[in-house]
Amino acid sequence: MLPLNLHHTAIAVRDLDAAIERFRALYGVEPLYREVIEGQDVEEAMVPLGGSYLQLLMPLSPDGPVGRFVAKRGEGLHHVAIQVADIDGALDDLRSQGAELVDERARVGGGGHRIAFVHPRAFGGTLVELVEVSA
Amino acid sequence: MLPLNLHHTAIAVRDLDAAIERFRALYGVEPLYREVIEGQDVEEAMVPLGGSYLQLLMPLSPDGPVGRFVAKRGEGLHHVAIQVADIDGALDDLRSQGAELVDERARVGGGGHRIAFVHPRAFGGTLVELVEVSA
Repeated sequence: MLPLNLHHTAIAVRDLDAAIERFRALYGVEPLYREVIEGQDVEEAMVPLGGSYLQLLMPLSPDGPVGRFVAKRGEGLHHVAIQVADIDGALDDLRSQGAELVDERARVGGGGHRIAFVHPRAFGGTLVELVEVSA
Repeated sequence: MLPLNLHHTAIAVRDLDAAIERFRALYGVEPLYREVIEGQDVEEAMVPLGGSYLQLLMPLSPDGPVGRFVAKRGEGLHHVAIQVADIDGALDDLRSQGAELVDERARVGGGGHRIAFVHPRAFGGTLVELVEVSA
């Protein structure tokens, strides 16, 4: 596998409107777009920072994975996303190294990209998302 | 303030050699350099991911900020670093918005860059580092 980029780093927040406004006041930059991801029970806003994004991630229910994260740990860094050219090959590489996967197969995520999550037990207690950017 | 880039995202790890080896096995990429930062009681390895870095960050003592983080929360995402053109102006902007700072003035950090940390209470429960890259 050859990672292409640090696609984004995600911060879980309780109130997306307030977080966007606060980030703009502090850092002078605002989201390029925001999007509800039904399957993940979240709304996300993608704030461009040079060649990468900061993703602000709000749970839409207390029972989804991000809702449970916020209830347990509060707002904070949630995951890091690595862009790859070939997500199916990347998942095969990870399996061959014995890495625990959250998603055995890629699915469609934000921006229409193919994504898959790698379990925090695979590396550094850190939830990693793989992203194969759609053309 | 105008953020230039997501400079790096840092993962706190217990064993830097093991983390570098595991990251290489899983993702096929290795650090560009590693460095002991005496004033912060850490050793860090900077793994290039496109236009940004993943920073692997190992505490050198249990009493420094990263040592206490790992003792309390285990390995995991530690901070996100935003590159700015003018760190002194950025700190003034943050102060004018009432943001709580860890470092009132910039100091020299990894890579010889000028850096300063912004307290997690300022935004999204997330420790943010400002980086003004040295020429």
